Amino acid sequence: MVKKTSKKWGLPPGTLVHIGEKKAEEVRITVIDYDETHFDERRVETIAECFPFRDEPTVTWVNIDGLHRADIIEALGNHYGLHPLVMEDLMSTGQRPKMEDYESYIFIVLRMLSYDEDKRVVTDEQVSLILGSNFVFSFQEKQGDIFDPVRERIRNGKGRMRKMGPDYLTYALIDSVVDYYFIILERLGEDIGLLEDELVRNPTIETLQSIHNLKREMIFLRRSVWPLREVISRLERGESTLFKQATMVYLRDVYDHTIQVIDTVESLRDMVSGMLDTYLSSISNRMNEVMKTLTIIATIFIPLSFVAGLYGMNFINIPELQLPWGYFMALSIMAAIALGMLAYFKRKRWF
Amino acid sequence: MVKKTSKKWGLPPGTLVHIGEKKAEEVRITVIDYDETHFDERRVETIAECFPFRDEPTVTWVNIDGLHRADIIEALGNHYGLHPLVMEDLMSTGQRPKMEDYESYIFIVLRMLSYDEDKRVVTDEQVSLILGSNFVFSFQEKQGDIFDPVRERIRNGKGRMRKMGPDYLTYALIDSVVDYYFIILERLGEDIGLLEDELVRNPTIETLQSIHNLKREMIFLRRSVWPLREVISRLERGESTLFKQATMVYLRDVYDHTIQVIDTVESLRDMVSGMLDTYLSSISNRMNEVMKTLTIIATIFIPLSFVAGLYGMNFINIPELQLPWGYFMALSIMAAIALGMLAYFKRKRWF
Amino acid sequence: MVKKTSKKWGLPPGTLVHIGEKKAEEVRITVIDYDETHFDERRVETIAECFPFRDEPTVTWVNIDGLHRADIIEALGNHYGLHPLVMEDLMSTGQRPKMEDYESYIFIVLRMLSYDEDKRVVTDEQVSLILGSNFVFSFQEKQGDIFDPVRERIRNGKGRMRKMGPDYLTYALIDSVVDYYFIILERLGEDIGLLEDELVRNPTIETLQSIHNLKREMIFLRRSVWPLREVISRLERGESTLFKQATMVYLRDVYDHTIQVIDTVESLRDMVSGMLDTYLSSISNRMNEVMKTLTIIATIFIPLSFVAGLYGMNFINIPELQLPWGYFMALSIMAAIALGMLAYFKRKRWF
Amino acid sequence: MVKKTSKKWGLPPGTLVHIGEKKAEEVRITVIDYDETHFDERRVETIAECFPFRDEPTVTWVNIDGLHRADIIEALGNHYGLHPLVMEDLMSTGQRPKMEDYESYIFIVLRMLSYDEDKRVVTDEQVSLILGSNFVFSFQEKQGDIFDPVRERIRNGKGRMRKMGPDYLTYALIDSVVDYYFIILERLGEDIGLLEDELVRNPTIETLQSIHNLKREMIFLRRSVWPLREVISRLERGESTLFKQATMVYLRDVYDHTIQVIDTVESLRDMVSGMLDTYLSSISNRMNEVMKTLTIIATIFIPLSFVAGLYGMNFINIPELQLPWGYFMALSIMAAIALGMLAYFKRKRWF
Amino acid sequence: MVKKTSKKWGLPPGTLVHIGEKKAEEVRITVIDYDETHFDERRVETIAECFPFRDEPTVTWVNIDGLHRADIIEALGNHYGLHPLVMEDLMSTGQRPKMEDYESYIFIVLRMLSYDEDKRVVTDEQVSLILGSNFVFSFQEKQGDIFDPVRERIRNGKGRMRKMGPDYLTYALIDSVVDYYFIILERLGEDIGLLEDELVRNPTIETLQSIHNLKREMIFLRRSVWPLREVISRLERGESTLFKQATMVYLRDVYDHTIQVIDTVESLRDMVSGMLDTYLSSISNRMNEVMKTLTIIATIFIPLSFVAGLYGMNFINIPELQLPWGYFMALSIMAAIALGMLAYFKRKRWF
Repeated sequence: MVKKTSKKWGLPPGTLVHIGEKKAEEVRITVIDYDETHFDERRVETIAECFPFRDEPTVTWVNIDGLHRADIIEALGNHYGLHPLVMEDLMSTGQRPKMEDYESYIFIVLRMLSYDEDKRVVTDEQVSLILGSNFVFSFQEKQGDIFDPVRERIRNGKGRMRKMGPDYLTYALIDSVVDYYFIILERLGEDIGLLEDELVRNPTIETLQSIHNLKREMIFLRRSVWPLREVISRLERGESTLFKQATMVYLRDVYDHTIQVIDTVESLRDMVSGMLDTYLSSISNRMNEVMKTLTIIATIFIPLSFVAGLYGMNFINIPELQLPWGYFMALSIMAAIALGMLAYFKRKRWF
Repeated sequence: MVKKTSKKWGLPPGTLVHIGEKKAEEVRITVIDYDETHFDERRVETIAECFPFRDEPTVTWVNIDGLHRADIIEALGNHYGLHPLVMEDLMSTGQRPKMEDYESYIFIVLRMLSYDEDKRVVTDEQVSLILGSNFVFSFQEKQGDIFDPVRERIRNGKGRMRKMGPDYLTYALIDSVVDYYFIILERLGEDIGLLEDELVRNPTIETLQSIHNLKREMIFLRRSVWPLREVISRLERGESTLFKQATMVYLRDVYDHTIQVIDTVESLRDMVSGMLDTYLSSISNRMNEVMKTLTIIATIFIPLSFVAGLYGMNFINIPELQLPWGYFMALSIMAAIALGMLAYFKRKRWF
Repeated sequence: MVKKTSKKWGLPPGTLVHIGEKKAEEVRITVIDYDETHFDERRVETIAECFPFRDEPTVTWVNIDGLHRADIIEALGNHYGLHPLVMEDLMSTGQRPKMEDYESYIFIVLRMLSYDEDKRVVTDEQVSLILGSNFVFSFQEKQGDIFDPVRERIRNGKGRMRKMGPDYLTYALIDSVVDYYFIILERLGEDIGLLEDELVRNPTIETLQSIHNLKREMIFLRRSVWPLREVISRLERGESTLFKQATMVYLRDVYDHTIQVIDTVESLRDMVSGMLDTYLSSISNRMNEVMKTLTIIATIFIPLSFVAGLYGMNFINIPELQLPWGYFMALSIMAAIALGMLAYFKRKRWF
Repeated sequence: MVKKTSKKWGLPPGTLVHIGEKKAEEVRITVIDYDETHFDERRVETIAECFPFRDEPTVTWVNIDGLHRADIIEALGNHYGLHPLVMEDLMSTGQRPKMEDYESYIFIVLRMLSYDEDKRVVTDEQVSLILGSNFVFSFQEKQGDIFDPVRERIRNGKGRMRKMGPDYLTYALIDSVVDYYFIILERLGEDIGLLEDELVRNPTIETLQSIHNLKREMIFLRRSVWPLREVISRLERGESTLFKQATMVYLRDVYDHTIQVIDTVESLRDMVSGMLDTYLSSISNRMNEVMKTLTIIATIFIPLSFVAGLYGMNFINIPELQLPWGYFMALSIMAAIALGMLAYFKRKRWF
Repeated sequence: MVKKTSKKWGLPPGTLVHIGEKKAEEVRITVIDYDETHFDERRVETIAECFPFRDEPTVTWVNIDGLHRADIIEALGNHYGLHPLVMEDLMSTGQRPKMEDYESYIFIVLRMLSYDEDKRVVTDEQVSLILGSNFVFSFQEKQGDIFDPVRERIRNGKGRMRKMGPDYLTYALIDSVVDYYFIILERLGEDIGLLEDELVRNPTIETLQSIHNLKREMIFLRRSVWPLREVISRLERGESTLFKQATMVYLRDVYDHTIQVIDTVESLRDMVSGMLDTYLSSISNRMNEVMKTLTIIATIFIPLSFVAGLYGMNFINIPELQLPWGYFMALSIMAAIALGMLAYFKRKRWF
């Protein structure tokens, strides 16, 4: 939950230090340059190969996977006039979602979530976007396929994508990230469904552990989603002129999706809390049943043992002991006591 | 709680995919066209039959039951100039209530609740409304009778309905949905009443299950009602010019009803929470009673058994054993111990 | 908690249907007409007898007890030009407090509380007020004496009452309702005091029931008082021109009282929650004491019984059994065990 | 918590009735009249002796201890043109802190807290202030020494006090009341410290009672402090022209103190809640220890007693009984069972 | 939690009294004077040595460690025209973070946190900053090394530090304090990690104590961080003209960090709450396991002992006793009972 930021303490603002786990071995840079009629996609080795696109009127999308190389970030930043604080934030992967308007460009930070099927946990990654008048930069911690559908839509050239500007591309990237949340929520919804079955069938201490894990995932999700809502709300309110009017309605749509995600997260949270209560009551209920049954058994035998003990005494004069049918009488008395107690417990509905 | 939206991931915005359970077999389209003097109602087979009404000055109400046919939605949307995102939302049945103003028309999404008497659960359905200058479109997931009273009022031509425009019709449809919430609340109120009786008479683990189910219904209701309030509040504040001044007072009335629904939901929630507490205390109280009684019985007999055991020992010289009245003395001692303990417990008010 | 509103479902807005329990047998109408010099009070049989006052410059106060007669409400409403929705709300007794400004008149709904001494519960009733330029209408569900002091002040003609207009009369009526809340709170405060004593002296399952009932009363009060605050706040902010400047300071005073009521309700709620905690801890504490004592008794006798059992064995060669003082030795051992255990438990502070 | 206000019900607004406990036997009036060069302090018998100061340009401070004499309040109020509602509020000692601006004067109500060392509870008292253009009236329920330092500062004539106007005097009085809260908080802080020690050393049911009492004190404090914050905030925002610019910075200072008091109250509340949790866990932990130990003892002896019982049976042919070393064998078996169980329990870390 | 402020009660505002623990023996004053080309750093003995810098155009940073000497604060304050309330606040070390704009200078109070490795607790210290047109004063309770990196950056003259004015220096000091919070959070994060391990492996009552301590640290942190957010937000909104436009973007950066700190604190709080729940369930689970096992053992032996007692009775005619294989039959019956009960418990999944 807490990223190692201590290595940055005391350094002047704008110092480029990579914060967070290094998730990619090498940095991978791809450039897509397009307008309605033109399309060019290439993978470049050095960031400098992107610079010529700067003065073209076409839309240039530079995607960088891997954030640990300060030299790349710095070269890009200096060429495009990014503020040192923006460069610093690009490399500090513990940012919360935010949007900063630097007039000639907008800097947007998002959290991308993914579900690790092996460990069955939700992991997250920082995705940063920079939108300028004719370019979009996207930064991911490691190579991923979340932006592939967007690439495909640019390639095949159908629909609105190629007709609209870099603001629409930025919207499409944000939309990919937000829509992916629904897939995570579906996955968590399934986990909750399985847990609920388990809770009814056979709750164990592991069930409790799973509930607590789910609860933690929910805290995790909320941290990513709540600030995202504010980011998109600010974009949608038209705070920046880089987003054109025609894109606004799409931003409103992605804002709606964010609200829906928040709503679902909150409902799931409520459900998980309810499951915790159910778990605790069902465990306590079961324990009570066990203890009650055992105590009833013990309670029935204790008076019987007393009667047996009574006639095990060695007094010289115990008249009952001399009766030929004394033993059978004692057995009958014991049976009567046992049945009487059972009847009483039954009537009291103790079992 | 989480709709399967993963099949839409990566598709461009405005793609028409039906999200949610398919609740109707075939799509049913009915058209009502009216003004103060004129009335025409018909069921049409193809959506194109509705298009001629577009240029008439009369109010046209097109009701579509069943949302899984993208071609119908698309034909209607294209003819009336609906935004692709609106068409997309019409078919994604997991929307939360919202209102979007597209200037020439307003798009409203509501959640309609109904009570499934068999499964004793509240189910919900998406109802969308589109209000234009001379038309209202309503979309339901399956055929229902919730709008029948509105139809009846148009047919018989009395009252305000025929005199006022499509905004009043939209109000009447919203009002039908909101008023139906009260019927759901009454139904849940009865369930709560029954449960409270059960809680007093004989609480079981099933009672707990029912309480948890009710709690979940409440979460469900809140999700539908809270955003609805904002929707109606925005309409009532006059954000759109499609609602005329004369209709505003009716919107205020339905807003009041929404507040009342929220109020009642919150009160019921409080009551259900209280019931959970009562359940837990009463179960624990009962368990305590059982354990206490049984422990008291055991505790009384344990010293008696000890006395019996004492005189069951085989030492050669136990003087009491030789007394002819030793056995009766032992019995008296036992009786005294038992009575003494009972008196002590009684005085301590342990039973 | 949920009023039967289902019978209104599907009816057009403005339909006059009485919702709620019918609390009065017949409708009782009284008229008071006054100005600084003139005073006229009468009980009328038909509502039409009030109509002549409409065009007089004097203040006319019409009080109607009993809301189940749609014809009376309708006649009055039509003559004075009330909106159909106002007439509908007058007869639906489940309204939450609200204020609606119809420019030529203001419609105010309040909840009047009373304490039913027999059932020891708080009941409520809807009180509606309509303030026009020279009239005030008040509607109660049944005849009550809450407005008697106001009537008395008009009759005796002293003080401000007769000098000021219908807005001051409206204030006086609201003030009567709000001030009565303090009497309810005093009554509940006494109940809480009694319960606290009971909680200390001898808490039973009935105490728990009473605490839960009090909690529910609090929910009830909050529902009446919180919206009332907003109503009076809106009046006090001068939203309507029907309230003159001179009356404002009195509205501020009644607003202060409302805040005080809310404050007290919240404090009482906190106290009742604290009582619930106290109850649960004290019950659990008591149960623990019982179980501990009984378990200690059992635990002391179990080793003693074991020693007795040991010397009750029938082995041919048990040397101790042959000792003449063996029995007394065994008794001493038992006493030593018992005392040792008691000392140990004492040192551990187990009792 | 609830003052007896029922005796005021139905009376017209502005009726002077003393609400609350009568804390002073007789009313004590003192007047201090001063400006930079002049100083006059006297105790007066009748309120009329203060009236001549009204037309002097000097600052007049009239302090009245004891609020039960309606005639005094009325004489003062009528002479200085106070609104009847102000006079009414002066005598109703259950007011929450508030500030009312009557243009020619400001009416301020505060709650003064004091710590009753005998009963170890916090008590409160209503302090009202009226600030006019050249006078300040202060009203206390009983004679107290909280304003003595202010008097002293006026008397010795050093510092700002004599140079500045009645608004600064009002500030100084408010400041005295607020600063006294810190002393109360210190006192409660000490109580909490003692309780925490007790909680660690030896928690009893009395500890629980004390925690609940502290919790109630906190509710009490919050009720006094939260509205106070709003009062001072309104004064500081310069809503009234009676406070001059030079005094504003001092009001901001006392506002800061109020925030600090609220902050501390909230922290203490959190701590007290934590203590309650600690108490409950520690009690339950202790109980568990006792029960576990006792149950382990019982469980070890039950199988031993069974073996003893086995060889106490009277069958004619029990081979072990005939062995000369049978008894010792039985003893060994018993010891083995006991040691085996102890080892098992130890390994399971049950004690 | 509550500082000893009672010694200040009754004193006039602006009285210089040191509140809080005296943490430094002597007061240490250092002066750094610089602009882009010039640099001068010295340690001074008397505060008067700083005064000549007042009229220089260079930036002067005076750092004072130790706040208990009223004469130093007073001399500085009088020379630079600080308000008496500012001087008072400098010496009262219990202030919450705040920002006060006195037009010619800004007064900022922060709480600096540090982690005491010995006692494993978070301690805090008041850091005050005063920013004027060409000077910055910083006040710490004791000498610390938190500002050393800032000094170093001024000394080596690289980067922005020397080029920008005193507002940037103020930002750098605030940034040092806020960045240090992350180090504290990392440290607490590690503690939480260790505790979670302990919770899984072997939870004891000490674990509970540690969880409660962590919870208290969180309350502590929140008190420092939440008001800080408002302070920086006000600075960032440009309320004061002393902060130049170029510094604003840096303030926004430190604001972001504050939000991140708050976010992390809230997440850690949630985690600690979850740990408490886990602790309680795991303790209760363990206790249940112990009790269940012991009760099962006892329950199995009780019927066996009863059979043994039965045949230990001394009736003259117990036919079974005379059978040569009677003993073995009894043993078989006992074994059958024991096995039957075990099988039953197993099937019921009681162990």
